[in-house]
Amino acid sequence: MQVGIVGLGSIGGSLGYDLRERQCRVIGVSRKQATCNRAVELGIADKASCNFDGLKSAELVILCTPIGKLEAIARQVIPHLNPDAVLTDVGSVKGPIVDAIEPLWKNFVGGHPMAGTHQSGVEAAQQSLFVDRPYVITPTAKTQPGAIAKLDQLITLIQARRYECGPAIHDQAVARISHGPVIISAALVSTAIAQHNPEEAAVVKLAKQLASSGFRDTSRVGGGNPELGLMMAQYNKDAMVQCLQQYRRELDGAIAAIESDNWDALNQWLIKTQTARPDFVD
Amino acid sequence: MQVGIVGLGSIGGSLGYDLRERQCRVIGVSRKQATCNRAVELGIADKASCNFDGLKSAELVILCTPIGKLEAIARQVIPHLNPDAVLTDVGSVKGPIVDAIEPLWKNFVGGHPMAGTHQSGVEAAQQSLFVDRPYVITPTAKTQPGAIAKLDQLITLIQARRYECGPAIHDQAVARISHGPVIISAALVSTAIAQHNPEEAAVVKLAKQLASSGFRDTSRVGGGNPELGLMMAQYNKDAMVQCLQQYRRELDGAIAAIESDNWDALNQWLIKTQTARPDFVD
Repeated sequence: MQVGIVGLGSIGGSLGYDLRERQCRVIGVSRKQATCNRAVELGIADKASCNFDGLKSAELVILCTPIGKLEAIARQVIPHLNPDAVLTDVGSVKGPIVDAIEPLWKNFVGGHPMAGTHQSGVEAAQQSLFVDRPYVITPTAKTQPGAIAKLDQLITLIQARRYECGPAIHDQAVARISHGPVIISAALVSTAIAQHNPEEAAVVKLAKQLASSGFRDTSRVGGGNPELGLMMAQYNKDAMVQCLQQYRRELDGAIAAIESDNWDALNQWLIKTQTARPDFVD
Repeated sequence: MQVGIVGLGSIGGSLGYDLRERQCRVIGVSRKQATCNRAVELGIADKASCNFDGLKSAELVILCTPIGKLEAIARQVIPHLNPDAVLTDVGSVKGPIVDAIEPLWKNFVGGHPMAGTHQSGVEAAQQSLFVDRPYVITPTAKTQPGAIAKLDQLITLIQARRYECGPAIHDQAVARISHGPVIISAALVSTAIAQHNPEEAAVVKLAKQLASSGFRDTSRVGGGNPELGLMMAQYNKDAMVQCLQQYRRELDGAIAAIESDNWDALNQWLIKTQTARPDFVD
């Protein structure tokens, strides 16, 4: 298979490694010539350039730019595609992306490979990054079966775990397990440092001295890269608000139970969460 | 020093190990004879029994029972104490405990050694559990200096990090970094499983398949032992409610910023939390 990868950062670069390993021919595109050179040097792409001309031989073109640039890049790439080429993206939000790109290209299907490297750039690319990791594809009623089949080939080659659902279902699910937790976790840190009077200043000082593993874990994603959290909220706004409003109802229920000494209700709720968590993670 | 330890579980037992190691004579008390025998066998106590008679030779008596039993145990122990003996406890909430026990014994001072073993019972006791871990003491205006000095000796012997503050400051600080996070984390799990219609059922199913390290960490303490969460809410009720109401204001601010596309405000807030977190944990 001939595959075009537009954006040679950690995700695009990691895809390149595995596809070349599986005998695909990879054509890379990046804004910077230095990145193109490095990608070829590392073995991520067979050839790479700053223009889109090389993409016309590709059967599958994967857009791997930051989510904010996907629509604009799709518009630039499309004039260079073979009419039968399948176009996909790796954005972590699907509704707005599918809405924007689907009308532009018949053979488009949205996708989201869920593997992160915490670092960005071509040097952060890794081999076998997607093995046994989820890869969600989000076709719509308009998606061509051939486009899905081509993306399935990719998923099989990189040995990812394939899931399929509508874009809205995807966005709500990632809001619950990934995007929402960033805000929920950040609000904890913001609460921990709140001080409106000298007594609260003493509380904050002591809290900093006593914080341990429970605070470390619960606050981790809220103390992460602000750009990522912002991006999630901007692009997944509707699902994020829906998730956080549900969260607020859960929180209000717990506060009400504590305020009214309804220990049985609080106990039942805590038993429910203890029982449910292993269905998500070990 | 002669030390009495009432309650030979993971905390009481661990204290026993270290105190004996430092040439103290340890008199253990437990409800169960089998626990007393095991404590002597393990080297946790020099002698141990189910009655309080042995405590009369102790200069320091440490109450290490579950928090719900501290006041009742103090009332049982006090008639057996030497008039000069210092009494302390290891409860994770201090306000209600200090309020209850301080009027009963002149030489009482509250304490909270913050080291956990995740397991309970005498077999979970560990040597050197408190080394470099926080030990908060919570004297009041009525506390005798001699009582503080005696507890300080203990803290030095077990090589813990000593902090001192009023009971209310302690309770608010632990609400922010330990007790509050349990509810905040549990509400995330409860949100993740919320389903009111078939679409949400599909969302929950996918969320379970996609959940990864971010969800794992943010949900960990909320998926823990319900009894512990319940105990924290019951005994630290006021500070817990205060913390959760502050949390709700932080959350509401974030939701409002997202709903109104106030990305600058959200960005500033996320930068603030990213900047603040390293003051609490690495």
